[in-house]
Amino acid sequence: MALRRDDVERAAARIRGHVRRTPVAEVERGLFLKLEGTQHSGSFKVRGAFNRILGAAEDGALPASGVIAASGGNHGLAVAYAARSLGIRAEIFVPEVCAPVKIEGLRRLGADVTVTGAIYAEAYEASRKRAADTGALEIHAYDQADVAAGQGTVGAELLDQIPGGVDTVLVAVGGGGLVAGIVAAVDGRASVVAVEPERIPTLHRALEAGEPVRVEVGGVGADALGASVAGRIALDTVAGRVSSVLVTDDAIVEARRALWREHRVAAEYAGAAALAALRSGVYAARDGERVAVVVCGANTDPATLAD
Amino acid sequence: MALRRDDVERAAARIRGHVRRTPVAEVERGLFLKLEGTQHSGSFKVRGAFNRILGAAEDGALPASGVIAASGGNHGLAVAYAARSLGIRAEIFVPEVCAPVKIEGLRRLGADVTVTGAIYAEAYEASRKRAADTGALEIHAYDQADVAAGQGTVGAELLDQIPGGVDTVLVAVGGGGLVAGIVAAVDGRASVVAVEPERIPTLHRALEAGEPVRVEVGGVGADALGASVAGRIALDTVAGRVSSVLVTDDAIVEARRALWREHRVAAEYAGAAALAALRSGVYAARDGERVAVVVCGANTDPATLAD
Ligand SMILES: Cc1ncc(COP(=O)(O)O)c(C=O)c1O
Ligand SMILES: Cc1ncc(COP(=O)(O)O)c(C=O)c1O
Repeated sequence: MALRRDDVERAAARIRGHVRRTPVAEVERGLFLKLEGTQHSGSFKVRGAFNRILGAAEDGALPASGVIAASGGNHGLAVAYAARSLGIRAEIFVPEVCAPVKIEGLRRLGADVTVTGAIYAEAYEASRKRAADTGALEIHAYDQADVAAGQGTVGAELLDQIPGGVDTVLVAVGGGGLVAGIVAAVDGRASVVAVEPERIPTLHRALEAGEPVRVEVGGVGADALGASVAGRIALDTVAGRVSSVLVTDDAIVEARRALWREHRVAAEYAGAAALAALRSGVYAARDGERVAVVVCGANTDPATLAD
Repeated sequence: MALRRDDVERAAARIRGHVRRTPVAEVERGLFLKLEGTQHSGSFKVRGAFNRILGAAEDGALPASGVIAASGGNHGLAVAYAARSLGIRAEIFVPEVCAPVKIEGLRRLGADVTVTGAIYAEAYEASRKRAADTGALEIHAYDQADVAAGQGTVGAELLDQIPGGVDTVLVAVGGGGLVAGIVAAVDGRASVVAVEPERIPTLHRALEAGEPVRVEVGGVGADALGASVAGRIALDTVAGRVSSVLVTDDAIVEARRALWREHRVAAEYAGAAALAALRSGVYAARDGERVAVVVCGANTDPATLAD
């Protein structure tokens, strides 16, 4: 199922007032950074979470047992934030490897946290079983239409905030919810470049194979971009409509450092991946090309920003 | 001499392309943050530096010996940045207490650094003597019309970037260049609140006395806000046209922490002082009041952002 522009426009109307319209900085002539790390919960992920919950509420399908998700990262934080903000219950399943500080963060947002399974896939399976028992609304990290459409509101805002127009949008990819939403939102009005770490070529391989394939994940961006299989919705939406490029971990580290040193912008590694494509030359903009880079997350230990 | 709106408008035209038009984030309904920490060199100070240098160049008064300033802080960084960017020489005088990392930062920007004097005032006096010898263009940290007019472009941008209008602008004060420029720029279209730390009430006392008076300086904001005497230009420009409020160091620390935790915005203490007035209730906004807060600097050790 391919996402469409009006899915994103509906999402934008739904989540308005619940999420921040994050600022865009023109840091040099024709280079725009969408500062999505300043979003509630520190990443764009609340957009999809709110859209999923509010969409279900519109359909009268919001169960008393609340919402459930599996994630020790930004998706979990976003679901917990959105649920608290709407006054509903959230259960978050995280694997045993999840750092205690992240579990603490989820609990501080009022979520019920269940720690289970050696790896993410096991925590995810446990969350599905629990959902079947309680009837809670499952919120997938990327492969649900309302989630991806919510993420796409980043792209709709971008176009609206840059009156002179944009030629190209660079965006980082994990499972592909964000890039799918942005491709749908932009709807041909700009080119979209999908950026992944070399060590997590999930969408890249899926586009080559014509179907989602399992990849090994590793490297600096793995905590946020480490989906091992691309979403079906992402693949259907972006096939033939994006350039897919890969960046090295070194390039990501360099871009993140530059965001701090040259712009005093905080980013986690995933949040710097899209800029890394530009700075490393993997994506080479033409003279005069107007490029927007989504700085998609800032959930990071600030002590490491200048590293 | 009171600064006027057209001084600021002239400055804006002059420095365009040399400084960043920094983004404004609407972080909640009617509350706007001007993210001036994302400016070149990490603070608004480059605006005044460029305006002073380019103004002199227009008058054919830019000496071959370049520019000279006294400051181990943001003003020094800004002068060094602007000079390098324009390809001219910069000499910066700093007192012996200046941290080696700051001297390194100035040297990395290509400045000639002279370390002299036990306190700032002695470094400043030495810079004046040196300027008399070399003929270099002195750039004062706040009490020069071109400097204050340059800083005022923050206010001009703000009004332009918030189409729905602003009722009140909150701004931190050291020697008063920034607030004077903003008062001139805004020119009655919004109220301006001048915010100082309780331990550095430089403008507050000057407004009470009707003339600049020397105050003791201390506390968390002293490295950037620690001017011991308010500028003449500042006093002439803002007297009768601002509310002057004082915030505690605790309130500044709390506001800076909130900027990081709730918004992932980096700020130094001075950069958080204006927000502190709002969060601590020292300035109480009416229901529906539209408030813009200038987050004026982000030159800080990122490891301390969450403290
Ligand atoms: C900061 C950040 N960037 C990018 C992504 C990737 O998003 P998607 O899985 O929708 O491709 C994530 C996912 O968690 C993220 O947290
Ligand atoms: C970050 C920051 N904020 C505010 C000020 C105060 O500016 P002014 O002296 O123009 O009042 C300074 C001065 O250095 C500064 O660096």
